[in-house]
Amino acid sequence: MPDIVVVPIGMVRSSLTDPREAPRQPDEGAPRARIELTPEAAPAAADLRAGDRIVVLTWLDRADRATLRVRPRDDPEREETGVFSTRSQARPNPIGLHEVTVTAVDAGRITVDALEAVDGTPVLDIKPVLTDVQQR
Amino acid sequence: MPDIVVVPIGMVRSSLTDPREAPRQPDEGAPRARIELTPEAAPAAADLRAGDRIVVLTWLDRADRATLRVRPRDDPEREETGVFSTRSQARPNPIGLHEVTVTAVDAGRITVDALEAVDGTPVLDIKPVLTDVQQR
Repeated sequence: MPDIVVVPIGMVRSSLTDPREAPRQPDEGAPRARIELTPEAAPAAADLRAGDRIVVLTWLDRADRATLRVRPRDDPEREETGVFSTRSQARPNPIGLHEVTVTAVDAGRITVDALEAVDGTPVLDIKPVLTDVQQR
Repeated sequence: MPDIVVVPIGMVRSSLTDPREAPRQPDEGAPRARIELTPEAAPAAADLRAGDRIVVLTWLDRADRATLRVRPRDDPEREETGVFSTRSQARPNPIGLHEVTVTAVDAGRITVDALEAVDGTPVLDIKPVLTDVQQR
């Protein structure tokens, strides 16, 4: 299979700068953040509105791509687990999935309520949360 | 921002071969399918079991990456919508998210109950559905 080239559609802007401070689950208190889209991708966001529930796909570019097994939450009492059974950032293709609510949209800048990704993280895609789509 | 190189972890094997036949939502009757992992990635799946709920991330390699606006469900009566507000396969980075149930695991081959991706689609990542993780 050939490798795949992905062109980021934007970047996370956040007060979170140290990956070790990033909460591991959204319910652990991620900060508000902004997604700055590239000029090329911005037209695809023209119909996003405050209140929309979206899934933001990020590329966790500081993650270790060579690790295939981890101890969940780095807990030494847990057994090593294949990363496809965990949400560890360490995995062959460290794509983050973040379900968030849009709080504001302004010309290619999307503010969201809580995003557990550090400043500068590339953004790959934005999708509506599926239950919202199904209701349309 | 630099481009990102993604190395597929495996490939979808399915009776679905024509993209036009692919159901647009999982509840529209996707067929059972198999994910064949590469030898390099297979150890990361060692703890997957029948019954696990997982999210399969695919690369929809037949999708149109230049389209930024679509009519939802190709319905001519609907207005054009920015693709980040739709689940259209047409988008700058056509990453598919498929929430499925594992029905069998056998040495790097994972059978799932229903997957709306055509035969040969590259697989990028596998994650547990979040509610399952949170309960652990």
